[in-house]
Amino acid sequence: MTRPSRSPADLFEAAIDGDRVALARLLSLIERGGDDARTVGRLAYRHATEGYTVGITGAPGAGKSTLTSALIKHLRATDIELAVLAIDPSSPFTGGAILGDRVRMQDHATDPGVFIRSMATRGHLGGMALAAPEAVRILDAAGFDLVIIETVGVGQAEIDVAAATDTTLVVLAPGLGDAIQMAKAGILEVADVFVVNKADRDGAAEVQRELRQMLHLGAARPWDPPVLATVASDGTGIDELWADIERHHAWLVSTGALAVDREAAVVHEVRALAAERLASSVQAQLADDAGLRARLRDRELDPYAAVDELIRRLAPG
Amino acid sequence: MTRPSRSPADLFEAAIDGDRVALARLLSLIERGGDDARTVGRLAYRHATEGYTVGITGAPGAGKSTLTSALIKHLRATDIELAVLAIDPSSPFTGGAILGDRVRMQDHATDPGVFIRSMATRGHLGGMALAAPEAVRILDAAGFDLVIIETVGVGQAEIDVAAATDTTLVVLAPGLGDAIQMAKAGILEVADVFVVNKADRDGAAEVQRELRQMLHLGAARPWDPPVLATVASDGTGIDELWADIERHHAWLVSTGALAVDREAAVVHEVRALAAERLASSVQAQLADDAGLRARLRDRELDPYAAVDELIRRLAPG
Repeated sequence: MTRPSRSPADLFEAAIDGDRVALARLLSLIERGGDDARTVGRLAYRHATEGYTVGITGAPGAGKSTLTSALIKHLRATDIELAVLAIDPSSPFTGGAILGDRVRMQDHATDPGVFIRSMATRGHLGGMALAAPEAVRILDAAGFDLVIIETVGVGQAEIDVAAATDTTLVVLAPGLGDAIQMAKAGILEVADVFVVNKADRDGAAEVQRELRQMLHLGAARPWDPPVLATVASDGTGIDELWADIERHHAWLVSTGALAVDREAAVVHEVRALAAERLASSVQAQLADDAGLRARLRDRELDPYAAVDELIRRLAPG
Repeated sequence: MTRPSRSPADLFEAAIDGDRVALARLLSLIERGGDDARTVGRLAYRHATEGYTVGITGAPGAGKSTLTSALIKHLRATDIELAVLAIDPSSPFTGGAILGDRVRMQDHATDPGVFIRSMATRGHLGGMALAAPEAVRILDAAGFDLVIIETVGVGQAEIDVAAATDTTLVVLAPGLGDAIQMAKAGILEVADVFVVNKADRDGAAEVQRELRQMLHLGAARPWDPPVLATVASDGTGIDELWADIERHHAWLVSTGALAVDREAAVVHEVRALAAERLASSVQAQLADDAGLRARLRDRELDPYAAVDELIRRLAPG
């Protein structure tokens, strides 16, 4: 017996009524992109409320997945319903199991208040940056109070996805490289909370001290990111971590920064969607224009001049 | 005594005459982006010839840098002049020294036939995908026969940059995760040559066997990627690796695939440049239009509808 396949709108209605199978299918539509993703995206945008998002990024081996699992455990004692998206645009090289698969097998498998999902959108240009906010809005519309986005991969795209959340945790551990390198790459700017995990190992205090020194070297900022120590595997420091996440949330709300950040995020999203759409149209023009391609190939025309020409065609007048 | 600063065009003339300081400055201009990058990019596009590029990507810990160094040593015995670009958009999380810094200190520091440079373009949207082909053309115009692009980071962007080269090496080593995960992420498609490095360790033969099995499961492809074993640290297998790179090059030339690939690469580049330019213009419109931002924020307008409206303004008629 096969069920008739449901339209994106039907799936959406079912998902907000609590149907987890429908919810999982919607997230698959978002992963794939295209017209169905657009339909779902529009529905979710209108239905989404003001759910909170926490991003977790950091070095491979720092224990991000264990930390996520520890946070889930902590939050389920408070009856917060939460979803976890494990984002992995580059699964070949992360060298570990995907959080979604791993955690689902373990502690939270039978808990209906937790929804865990891995997402990857390889090959779908601008993929994860476009898909992540859509997925968050669907989960929000489906009634989750909190969405945690854990990045499994370690490229710039993953850092950007984590940084786009309301509260961004950057996770380090002793022995994974020095803090000065992180500073150079702008990680200090994206972190709202630093977590030095595996704090029972040698060198943890030094990592904390280095981070604090660097934070105090820079210009004073309106929010001063705390530097916490945790041992996620046994739950040490998780209470304090959640307290600091809540403190950051309260600060964002009280200063108005939350509204400003969210407006900036949607502007960024519109920019990315427009770029994707226009690039596709330029690509279609190039595909149809063998003459232009020949001039490029023969170096009569350089790529910048080709762009000028294609944009003139796009916007006459 | 300070020297007068040179224009991008002057730097370019000096670089193609062999001035390595000028060459390094040009690459810095490309990293930064903006008008000077555009000027240099246009000059280089007209001057570039048909230099060959080899990309090296793979799991962290597989020994990509050591392999690059071994290839340099091998090639310098043949009088090929070569440049190495070590691409690292996400330096905080790679956990190791940057190849450029490491190798420069070591074997090739005093050899004028080798030019090694690290590049990172964090924060510059679409950064590395736009900057890498520009950098290659500058090095090509400056007379290098071969440019090796080694990716230090491990995100999708890095894989894409390596895959855009003429011959792409994918480097694995025993104990870094299984080949099935790589297959899922499309790595089989980007590799022209597989290198199982650290082949003196347990499990190397198994990695080779797994890879070969997976390659033979898929549809037959015009080029069958060889699966080589190397021990880069002592040079074992490097002669064979270079022979396979040359064999792939000869195959690309004889079948016409090289010309097809390069046309596709420049089309891709024009697409990316156009996307960046148009996205900036959409962003500027959004910045000027508080009413549109308010409608987005109040969820009267969803991001897709906003894009429709902004694109209509961009292209009247």
